Amino acid sequence: MPPYFLDPNFQPTEHSAKLAFSGNHLDRQSEAREDDCVDRAMEHSDAQFIGIARGRVVLRFNGEDAIGFHPHDHLSDHQPRWERAILLGYENGAPRLAVPLGLNPDDENLVLPDDVKLVDFRSLAIQKLLSHSELGQMAQGAATLAWHSSARYCGRCGGQTEMKGGGVKRHCQSCKADQFPRTDPVVIMLTVRGDKCLLGRSPHFPPGMYSALAGFVEAGETMETAVRRETHEESGIHIGRVRYHATQPWPFPHTLMIGCYGEALSDEIVRDEGELDDCRWFTRDEILAILDGNGPLTEDDVPQFFTPPNIAIASRLVTDWARNGEGQFD
Amino acid sequence: MPPYFLDPNFQPTEHSAKLAFSGNHLDRQSEAREDDCVDRAMEHSDAQFIGIARGRVVLRFNGEDAIGFHPHDHLSDHQPRWERAILLGYENGAPRLAVPLGLNPDDENLVLPDDVKLVDFRSLAIQKLLSHSELGQMAQGAATLAWHSSARYCGRCGGQTEMKGGGVKRHCQSCKADQFPRTDPVVIMLTVRGDKCLLGRSPHFPPGMYSALAGFVEAGETMETAVRRETHEESGIHIGRVRYHATQPWPFPHTLMIGCYGEALSDEIVRDEGELDDCRWFTRDEILAILDGNGPLTEDDVPQFFTPPNIAIASRLVTDWARNGEGQFD
Repeated sequence: MPPYFLDPNFQPTEHSAKLAFSGNHLDRQSEAREDDCVDRAMEHSDAQFIGIARGRVVLRFNGEDAIGFHPHDHLSDHQPRWERAILLGYENGAPRLAVPLGLNPDDENLVLPDDVKLVDFRSLAIQKLLSHSELGQMAQGAATLAWHSSARYCGRCGGQTEMKGGGVKRHCQSCKADQFPRTDPVVIMLTVRGDKCLLGRSPHFPPGMYSALAGFVEAGETMETAVRRETHEESGIHIGRVRYHATQPWPFPHTLMIGCYGEALSDEIVRDEGELDDCRWFTRDEILAILDGNGPLTEDDVPQFFTPPNIAIASRLVTDWARNGEGQFD
Repeated sequence: MPPYFLDPNFQPTEHSAKLAFSGNHLDRQSEAREDDCVDRAMEHSDAQFIGIARGRVVLRFNGEDAIGFHPHDHLSDHQPRWERAILLGYENGAPRLAVPLGLNPDDENLVLPDDVKLVDFRSLAIQKLLSHSELGQMAQGAATLAWHSSARYCGRCGGQTEMKGGGVKRHCQSCKADQFPRTDPVVIMLTVRGDKCLLGRSPHFPPGMYSALAGFVEAGETMETAVRRETHEESGIHIGRVRYHATQPWPFPHTLMIGCYGEALSDEIVRDEGELDDCRWFTRDEILAILDGNGPLTEDDVPQFFTPPNIAIASRLVTDWARNGEGQFD
């Protein structure tokens, strides 16, 4: 019998469950895997594969419907590296796997069948081309494959490593050490002060986009101390209380976004000019107008400000604060 | 001026702040570091070093007082690997560093001065031999040094890597890729059902010790889904709501413990016999008796049950539930 949380009637209520990439309902069986589990899964008549090439996923279109998981033979034209395939888990007993593809999506000479497209992870999520659960499986596969390609040699001795357990670890052929997939915790926090919140823009953002501040949790930090340090480094703002809101697996490349609200204890922004192009307070009314598409326009008649797409946890933090009263400390 | 959170008057109120290893108040300046920052710090007349050898820290005793940070020359008899020293940060402008030692604490022929001892991280914390902030600095140093020793070769190409920025990253001399310190998120959850909570014991525990269940967050999981999967795998119990309680940096070797309460939706335990020797429900009265030292005794007149030492977040989860009403879902 599959775990209870695979039952479609089990509907988690936390904020995390609404976020893109969070809905993976596969039965991973990570603890019960044999080293030949991929070989056996490949022989399973109902095995389904997701094919990933440099951040893009192979989709086959059947009219409007996009199909992300394919039978073995459907990927054979796309330079599959079967020897690097990983087992994601099982859905109703049928194995699901991810396989890296050798093809280069940016190759001008690449010819694909008319019904096949290579789509990047963000577009997949924004356009809701896969189901909530399949997007989560894609995130699992992308993050795990990215880690495997970064761990082909042993960091301790430089020896070659080999995959074990269908991808749950790698084993050094030389010093025999095992290593396990890496997940990098990042805090992302909406700083709130009464009726206003703090947003900043990185030089990498499209013009007009503002988001919550964020940064990696460093060694020897708690969630709360990481929130205070990062907020202070980037904006100069002091944070008192910190409240957990939601987590999101973010496959760029293998991150766990930890979304929080921070209670600002100060007003004056001292921007880190190396990290941020701008950093400013927005009132709730300004945010509501921006979210509703009624914010101020530039001279070119495009929105002066916008927040990240709703697949990003930053969007959820902003929306849940502005519309639903989350993150109020007083 | 140092950041506000280094001011002794700044007293964070979250549960995380009370946990061992969480009080690091150094000004890390991670973003502003030059590659020669360790060399310059070593020349600073007030530089202080913590020396770490295979999980043990050099302490010098001045009567009852234990000193964990030492001037440069005080470590020269302990086989310091100065070329691997990392910068932790600054305290009142004076640099603090961590240096790995070549000596083997388990060497029977090791001779140390009378006032010097090598103490493991757990004992340091349990016996409160260092201040709250210094314990946190030790955790930062231990976790970061452990990562450096596991990342001496590039996982992508097998080339040799070198430390940069005083330890904030490593750079591959061959393929030029950078890599950053690793922090592994782990969920640890006290599962609660009305007036009882669920504890298990691993085969590695001392006899009689029971603790909250725990496990690594896997790729493509949220905090909540990791809590549900791990709890189900180990105990068969179904979890509904999940509530964040606290995080703790745990330097074994470089983990972020994410402590939660889980709302049990079922009673019947199906123990993972490979992972746990025992798993059982304890009533609040039983837990209170155990915490007060009034729990049942074995035939040998020793406590039949005990929970982890209070430095562990598991202890905090149990105590805060039993004594302070945290983690009640109804």
